[in-house]
Amino acid sequence: MAKVKKQPRPKAETPKGFRDYFGAEVTERAAMLDAIAGVYHRYGFEALESSAVETVEALGKFLPDVDRPNEGVFAWQEADEEGRGDWLALRYDLTAPLARVYAQHRNELPTPYRRFAMGPVWRNEKPGPGRFRQFYQCDADTVGAPSVAADAEICAMLADVLEEVGIPRGDYLIRVNNRKVLNGVLEAMGLEDEAQKDAVLRTIDKFDKVGEAGVRELLGKGRLDASGAYIDGVGLASDQAEPVVAFLTSKGDDSAATLANLRAAVGSSAMGAEGVDELGEIADLLAAQGYGPDRIVIDPSVVRGLGYYTGPVFEAELTFEITDEKGRPRQFGSVAGGGRYDDLVKRFTGQAVPATGVSIGVDRLLAALRATGRVGGQAEGPVVVTVMDRAKMAEYQKMVAELRQAGIRAEVYLGNPKNFGNQLKYADRRGSPAAVIAGSEEFERGVVQIKDLILGAEIAENATLEEWKERPSQFEAPRGELVARVQEILAGVRK
Amino acid sequence: MAKVKKQPRPKAETPKGFRDYFGAEVTERAAMLDAIAGVYHRYGFEALESSAVETVEALGKFLPDVDRPNEGVFAWQEADEEGRGDWLALRYDLTAPLARVYAQHRNELPTPYRRFAMGPVWRNEKPGPGRFRQFYQCDADTVGAPSVAADAEICAMLADVLEEVGIPRGDYLIRVNNRKVLNGVLEAMGLEDEAQKDAVLRTIDKFDKVGEAGVRELLGKGRLDASGAYIDGVGLASDQAEPVVAFLTSKGDDSAATLANLRAAVGSSAMGAEGVDELGEIADLLAAQGYGPDRIVIDPSVVRGLGYYTGPVFEAELTFEITDEKGRPRQFGSVAGGGRYDDLVKRFTGQAVPATGVSIGVDRLLAALRATGRVGGQAEGPVVVTVMDRAKMAEYQKMVAELRQAGIRAEVYLGNPKNFGNQLKYADRRGSPAAVIAGSEEFERGVVQIKDLILGAEIAENATLEEWKERPSQFEAPRGELVARVQEILAGVRK
Repeated sequence: MAKVKKQPRPKAETPKGFRDYFGAEVTERAAMLDAIAGVYHRYGFEALESSAVETVEALGKFLPDVDRPNEGVFAWQEADEEGRGDWLALRYDLTAPLARVYAQHRNELPTPYRRFAMGPVWRNEKPGPGRFRQFYQCDADTVGAPSVAADAEICAMLADVLEEVGIPRGDYLIRVNNRKVLNGVLEAMGLEDEAQKDAVLRTIDKFDKVGEAGVRELLGKGRLDASGAYIDGVGLASDQAEPVVAFLTSKGDDSAATLANLRAAVGSSAMGAEGVDELGEIADLLAAQGYGPDRIVIDPSVVRGLGYYTGPVFEAELTFEITDEKGRPRQFGSVAGGGRYDDLVKRFTGQAVPATGVSIGVDRLLAALRATGRVGGQAEGPVVVTVMDRAKMAEYQKMVAELRQAGIRAEVYLGNPKNFGNQLKYADRRGSPAAVIAGSEEFERGVVQIKDLILGAEIAENATLEEWKERPSQFEAPRGELVARVQEILAGVRK
Repeated sequence: MAKVKKQPRPKAETPKGFRDYFGAEVTERAAMLDAIAGVYHRYGFEALESSAVETVEALGKFLPDVDRPNEGVFAWQEADEEGRGDWLALRYDLTAPLARVYAQHRNELPTPYRRFAMGPVWRNEKPGPGRFRQFYQCDADTVGAPSVAADAEICAMLADVLEEVGIPRGDYLIRVNNRKVLNGVLEAMGLEDEAQKDAVLRTIDKFDKVGEAGVRELLGKGRLDASGAYIDGVGLASDQAEPVVAFLTSKGDDSAATLANLRAAVGSSAMGAEGVDELGEIADLLAAQGYGPDRIVIDPSVVRGLGYYTGPVFEAELTFEITDEKGRPRQFGSVAGGGRYDDLVKRFTGQAVPATGVSIGVDRLLAALRATGRVGGQAEGPVVVTVMDRAKMAEYQKMVAELRQAGIRAEVYLGNPKNFGNQLKYADRRGSPAAVIAGSEEFERGVVQIKDLILGAEIAENATLEEWKERPSQFEAPRGELVARVQEILAGVRK
């Protein structure tokens, strides 16, 4: 006779690339997002929480006629009556849903529509160390505002956001560039061939790594890289490459100097000139509101999202140093970025709708605040009322009710009360500032023992009640003074 | 030659059964959840945000060996190297993930583990009017606490939560029952046959509808229902049905009377007696903390989740009347419920872990607060600085910067400024308390026009600037007094 096979127990694991967030990880992020939302709101932006699930068609990353969407998103097919319904997917950012929302609700929404959104997004990517497939984004966008005043506003707001969450002035820099200037440079070079344009753009992206001389080589005949391999060049004559080099090295001592250098780099290109004018306008608008180059600066080296943006682009960088996992100092780097994109809503409606916006890397910004000690530290644990006598549970509950009514975080120990050491270990694990102890003797005498755990050293593994009572950080108080004496501990008065 | 078929535009629509939330809908919910989190935190509960995506295996609602999970959740299969990976799914509640989290992290988590969680959950159900496939839950659970003190704590916390969000005492009632009492009643009846037990449970569920006499008929020979159809009875003799009737009618004038009636109903059943004892203990613990029957009451008619809970069950009901969509008054009804369930973690670890918790229906509670005017009303729109002269954009930006620095929500109009009427219509649409107007004349004279939109009546469709200036709710102020005068409007001083 065959044995009945026992159903194996399910594995208690998150799916690969997913994780859980506990306690302070959750509340610190929530507090940071609250602070950011406050700034967005003050700037007139309205909250939007769009559905986490979209049709693949609306997300627009995949063709609707393939059997199964490609990698990149988590997608599944709805089962309708005929068994083949719409393909649905989890949103992979907050911008694609904004386009769908604006196209769907444009008759009820004000124009311009300033909106902010914050929440998880999902990416179906290969998970790796520190790379998760669910993470938070926090965006603000203005839809329907063609003027660069909208871009300037986003930059000013980004500066205010960083200061609001605790990054002091001087520890961040918002760098602004314009996609039109780059296009102007390509125009000034007289490039017609798209493949050659792409090759030039890829070379520009390498400036940070190879420097001016390297870029000159790569735009010309080619270059021997550090590994000894020879990289073929774009094949431009050296004077034809000049506008790119001029563009890359155009950062001057102030905005006026940078703008003059950029104007020279774009030569006679009308689009380039327009881009430089827009940067000038942004600089003027920001200066009028008091946002100087110590906070927001024109910087041609910002090349983010080359293929995506249609006008101004910006990036917020934290300029202080942290120590990396190998103990070396390095700059913290980028925590937010964005720019102008004008073809977002057009997919749905056929009409171009100007839009500009910023996305804050929530986890990176939070990591920065933690790295500099601006959030974190010891989370506030609850006062733990221990249980010496199970029959007195109502009395212990009364104590915590009083503490809570005074606004103090407090709880009764609800595990098995037999081993008193376990109760104190529990209080330790919770980061409790104080433990309250009362047995039959205390109840008779109308007192409680209060253990100051902030003052007290680490909790000994197997201390008995008697040993605990002897320690100087423990004291007796009349039952009626429970709340007042705990408040003293929390206020640090007893220290 | 075949024509090149043009790609059709994607539809700008949420998937069926999903929706977006705008402005105050988002911020009011967030504020309510914040208030709830504050109470949970004060009771010693820790935040947990688990992954929105779980393995189908861990969720446990489906067999892992079927090709595609059944209805109920949104699920998809991971594509691994061999093309067949784990089945993943969106969580359908916050309790199943808690079991997985506790089983996975139990060595690092304190025991008891008090945790709260709030966030969206997803159900793959047929959408209907007012029924959505993504909605919020807000739960608090204590894992690893066997004593009913944990259940009593949840009930007290629930009362505090309701008062904290704005439901006054007297407008809600938390009703507590115990699954063991019901089991005791079945024992007292001497029922052995499982099918007969189920039939009795189904009959108990109909008490609200058919009353005591109806239940007697249904437990006996059967009953002619309102539609004229004859419903077969369970076939019990009338004395055998007595414990059920006694149970259903056991609610007395106070807890002591109810408990005495319940004790009679369970007869000699040990499990029933244990259930009644637990209810008595809960009543005592709550009374000691001052939670009287005006807030929390023993009520045998609470029969929620018959098959699921193993001990105390509770439900929070709002007792005030609202007017339904047909204009009839009705009680608002249940907004939260929960109870003790002890087999949650066992699936993973093989060891029973006692647990109890509550889930608040976020959308229903918010609807209740809105229905009674406790949240909602007019959301605070931004002060709108209108644009009369595009060349003065920097000056307008300076004005909003000053207003924001004073903590006032403000923005410059960033749409096309040509039609001034559109700017005022925009301000109206945003619910702006004030609009600021300054053209070349005002700049020359160093003044601004301020339009008090709170005082002002509805905005006329095509008003000219001149007509606007004549209205009494508009006044002129020196430029330097902009912030002060707007503050007066916001404070209602000018009213």
